[in-house]
Amino acid sequence: MPSGSILNKKVTFQPYDITVEVEDGENLLKAALNAGVHINASCGGEGVCGKCRILLEEGTLECPDNTLLSQDDWNLGYRQACQCRVRSDIVVRIPPESLLDKKTITRRRSGISLRPSPINVAGLKEEGLYNPAFQKKFLKLPPATLTDNVCDLSRLEQGLNKQYGLKNLTLDFLLTRKLAKAMRQDDFQVTATLDFAQRRSRNPRLVDIDPGDTTGRHYALAVDIGTTTVWVQLLDLAKGEIVGHAADYNGQLSYGDDVISRILYSQKEGGLETLQKAVVNTINKVTQGLLKQHKLPVEEISHITVAANTTMTHLLYAIDPKNIRLAPYTPAACHVPPVRASHLGLDLPKHVFIYSVSSVSSYVGGDIVAGVLASGIYKESKLTLYIDIGTNGEIVVGNQEWLACAACSAGPAFEGGGIRYGMRAARGAVEDVSVNPQTGEPMFMTIDRVKPKGICGSGLINLLAALLEGNILGPNGRFRDDLDTPRIRASETGREYVLAWADETASGEDLVVSEEDIENLMRAKAAMFAGYLTLIDSVGLKLQDIEQVILAGAFGSFINLENAITIGLMPDLPRERFHFVGNGSLSGATLLAFSRELLEEERRVADMMTNFELSETPGFMDQYIAALFLPHTQEDYFPTVTERLRAG
Amino acid sequence: MPSGSILNKKVTFQPYDITVEVEDGENLLKAALNAGVHINASCGGEGVCGKCRILLEEGTLECPDNTLLSQDDWNLGYRQACQCRVRSDIVVRIPPESLLDKKTITRRRSGISLRPSPINVAGLKEEGLYNPAFQKKFLKLPPATLTDNVCDLSRLEQGLNKQYGLKNLTLDFLLTRKLAKAMRQDDFQVTATLDFAQRRSRNPRLVDIDPGDTTGRHYALAVDIGTTTVWVQLLDLAKGEIVGHAADYNGQLSYGDDVISRILYSQKEGGLETLQKAVVNTINKVTQGLLKQHKLPVEEISHITVAANTTMTHLLYAIDPKNIRLAPYTPAACHVPPVRASHLGLDLPKHVFIYSVSSVSSYVGGDIVAGVLASGIYKESKLTLYIDIGTNGEIVVGNQEWLACAACSAGPAFEGGGIRYGMRAARGAVEDVSVNPQTGEPMFMTIDRVKPKGICGSGLINLLAALLEGNILGPNGRFRDDLDTPRIRASETGREYVLAWADETASGEDLVVSEEDIENLMRAKAAMFAGYLTLIDSVGLKLQDIEQVILAGAFGSFINLENAITIGLMPDLPRERFHFVGNGSLSGATLLAFSRELLEEERRVADMMTNFELSETPGFMDQYIAALFLPHTQEDYFPTVTERLRAG
Repeated sequence: MPSGSILNKKVTFQPYDITVEVEDGENLLKAALNAGVHINASCGGEGVCGKCRILLEEGTLECPDNTLLSQDDWNLGYRQACQCRVRSDIVVRIPPESLLDKKTITRRRSGISLRPSPINVAGLKEEGLYNPAFQKKFLKLPPATLTDNVCDLSRLEQGLNKQYGLKNLTLDFLLTRKLAKAMRQDDFQVTATLDFAQRRSRNPRLVDIDPGDTTGRHYALAVDIGTTTVWVQLLDLAKGEIVGHAADYNGQLSYGDDVISRILYSQKEGGLETLQKAVVNTINKVTQGLLKQHKLPVEEISHITVAANTTMTHLLYAIDPKNIRLAPYTPAACHVPPVRASHLGLDLPKHVFIYSVSSVSSYVGGDIVAGVLASGIYKESKLTLYIDIGTNGEIVVGNQEWLACAACSAGPAFEGGGIRYGMRAARGAVEDVSVNPQTGEPMFMTIDRVKPKGICGSGLINLLAALLEGNILGPNGRFRDDLDTPRIRASETGREYVLAWADETASGEDLVVSEEDIENLMRAKAAMFAGYLTLIDSVGLKLQDIEQVILAGAFGSFINLENAITIGLMPDLPRERFHFVGNGSLSGATLLAFSRELLEEERRVADMMTNFELSETPGFMDQYIAALFLPHTQEDYFPTVTERLRAG
Repeated sequence: MPSGSILNKKVTFQPYDITVEVEDGENLLKAALNAGVHINASCGGEGVCGKCRILLEEGTLECPDNTLLSQDDWNLGYRQACQCRVRSDIVVRIPPESLLDKKTITRRRSGISLRPSPINVAGLKEEGLYNPAFQKKFLKLPPATLTDNVCDLSRLEQGLNKQYGLKNLTLDFLLTRKLAKAMRQDDFQVTATLDFAQRRSRNPRLVDIDPGDTTGRHYALAVDIGTTTVWVQLLDLAKGEIVGHAADYNGQLSYGDDVISRILYSQKEGGLETLQKAVVNTINKVTQGLLKQHKLPVEEISHITVAANTTMTHLLYAIDPKNIRLAPYTPAACHVPPVRASHLGLDLPKHVFIYSVSSVSSYVGGDIVAGVLASGIYKESKLTLYIDIGTNGEIVVGNQEWLACAACSAGPAFEGGGIRYGMRAARGAVEDVSVNPQTGEPMFMTIDRVKPKGICGSGLINLLAALLEGNILGPNGRFRDDLDTPRIRASETGREYVLAWADETASGEDLVVSEEDIENLMRAKAAMFAGYLTLIDSVGLKLQDIEQVILAGAFGSFINLENAITIGLMPDLPRERFHFVGNGSLSGATLLAFSRELLEEERRVADMMTNFELSETPGFMDQYIAALFLPHTQEDYFPTVTERLRAG
């Protein structure tokens, strides 16, 4: 008898109290996705990340034995959702560490507003760079008569020539369908929207037409598509102002935490389309919220600019990213021509085109190029090191003459990956830490001041620096074994440090950092540091030649610079050389919308950036091994840290 | 009780023996459209043309009294399909004159093949004009390695630069989705399709990519969309040859015979979309037949060029043609930028764009501009008169220095409209006629040599000339009343001439030409002739200055020149100055596909053509009235005809 597709099992998700009916044998993670219930799944359901832990409260699940769960957790009822099949009506609970907390994406810290896009519009105007590619022109056209009955399009073209000296325009086909009505609605007074971006020597393009004078109402969107978070910034082109911004988690998170798991997911049947729709839905949702908040109709948006890493860019355009993952790591396209946004599923007017920032290589994407554009290093004489830390730390070195770049496979440690109690910078994450060198007792604060759930990346850096400065941790990443404190104890894989006891934590278990965790962090920081050195060395320069260090990215904004230098993640250069630019990717996308010159030259900047594959670059491996120490095996790279640690 | 939508009435159409079920009260013409049964409907169902006559054989129809049918016809069972509602199961017969006969579209005549497109490809090559905008280039690219892992697109661009010196290309977005796979399928050997048309200074555009070397297989389509007939020509761009052509009636015929009824139909709810789909379906059907016949896959087509009158162009692109019909007769757009063909519903590969020839005004369309391009008059020094006769006769006068053009509302007389037994040039149409001046007895031949159904336009010209030369008809368009022949008899509106008796005809009734019919023909020819004179006069020239007359269009190809001059439709100039170019519109579309230079300059030629609204041009009305005579009131315009008629 064929089994059919009978939805006869009920699955209830707590704490949401959402129930869905599924087929017998349905995968539990899939059931959660269908229910709209979010469970972390870093690996896209491969079962290797162990992030999708749920607690079985009632009923029966069919689960394999070879999961990443400890026997204790198993006995408590923990299961990996992606590995289990539903075999009866069940009730499951999503534990705090598997929940995403949205509020903290846009958190403020230490009283300083984190601006996602520190664009200085006034400065842009002073420099003469405020010159949006998309502009509106008001026209009073002579009405048609029997002795002057040229086609409506020619009348519009003649008006643009006569009133604004514009000639040889190209045009959006769809305009031809709107012309006749728009021109007659307000007695041949119209506002034309034009695109002046001279990409590849194209002539100005007629984009849209409205009846009457609408020149005062003209908006654009700038978008940063991060692997984790999507930012949308609403721009007033008529006034040259940022109206507002909003963010949400990238809807693709349900299919994998990092670019590699997304690429793997894209290779499944229908996977590429699913991922494409997921990110488009996120952009749509965030945009709708922004427009509603600012009471603007979507019709007044004329274009959208996007910056994203190479994989995110491929997925946005539904270009197969397969070869990004496979040696020799060739993206299909590092630049994509303007495309009608509605063609990609974006809920924007038909005449809106989407422009994206060019990428350099598989792992140096448009987000980095956008940051380079936003920080202006491509036109400065100062030798600059530009750093964006994440799962893949990206580095750019250079100035107006040349730019070299590379990606470091730092691994997900700074995003909480591979760290037992690592988590994103969300509610309940330990962020600020100090440790009493005498007693080994910690003091810490969590985001939103709630019971700790885990430790976020900046918290890990701070903890590591505190343990190192307190001489509780040795430069080799091992805990001292001669301290009289219950905080340090033996674990299965070495020693571990108890940051919070079970009764103090959200999960009700001890919050610890193990030597294994620290090893992972050291690998990550070593990869970054070896990356800087190799890149600087490959162009015949020394670390001390760097005149300016720019830290980009959300993580870069939250980092405690002194602590990051202490553990050897950041170079030990005079502190005044460091600058934080926040979300450089979003800033770059915004600049493209505000400045025709930048929209025109973004590809030139991308083409100017020489990509280094570090794994193929002589010396990188030696540098990496030398950096597997706190702060570094070569003390002269870290003079101030060495001095302080010795003094301490 | 709501009536619901119950299909409980059977309608059987004879002679096809097709039965459909319809709702009670359904319109009979609509039932025929649903059944796929074609009935002529010149007026789009307005009830004013009287062309959709059917014969009710069984059952009940609810019909109004105020139809165009005579009482006799009504008693015989004739009804106007567009005016009737189905009230019982019925059987109706479509009489011969309401059928369309497809075979004769591509008829051959007098042993001479009518080439739809007399393009001299060899001559084009000799002139250096054979240079298609779309070209394929074969590339052997170096495979990607870890030390050379630029994106696939950059690799392709580098190859095109290195092997062919091509730089600064733009590209079709969709290509980015195909690149990775295509490049790896045959070890980085690929064929790129490029578009070199520099319209509005655009750089060459990368259009498509195939694995391996496919340069030998490259095709295009050229299309002429006539109000009545759609021609498609299949072109081999690799060899520079015309592969073949095919035609079919424009599917829009079911919604009206002429451009005005189509425009009216387009104003109905959903009408524009219906008409757009109808013509696209026709192009798809003809193209599929052509490809099947020549065993070519559609994937090898790279672009499509189209020429059509202004209304047909608007309808193809679903641009509202409303103002073409309303004073001051302004089209929405006389030029439409290239559009993705699939966007319009054409069954062609996604990368195929459609290019259309620019129009000049509401009634001088892209078909005429295409004819001007094909005939080359825009680059000749000879003063030329270009004539395309149809419902709207279009006229162009000029040379390489200047071009003036106008449309004459000749009315549908030359297409059989407004003539009681007028019909299209189809099976059973009287074509060649002579009349014995002594007896008044005619001799005639029909197309396909079957019993006469009616008289086509060229037949009417020949009949009129014969009657005039036989002195049976006076120069004022009245039959002589002193002839002893039953062929001439009184009718309700004057006299009429019986060309065939009831027992000789397909319909079983006398086939006659009335003085009213002749008046309509005289109006039509007068409008044309007054048009030439006015246009020539408006540029300060005389008829005798014309060094060349080009007759275009299917009708122009079938016309007997001497007879057309005799009745005053064509000017009485030395016969060697006349040339027939056949379907100039299709020729022009073909040239655009074969020659990048022409594709680039077609809009320049359209812009060069100054449009005259004859109704607004001083002198036209006087000229028109002066021409309402056979051949003309001013004999000196027709010296050879006058001489011959006197001699006769």
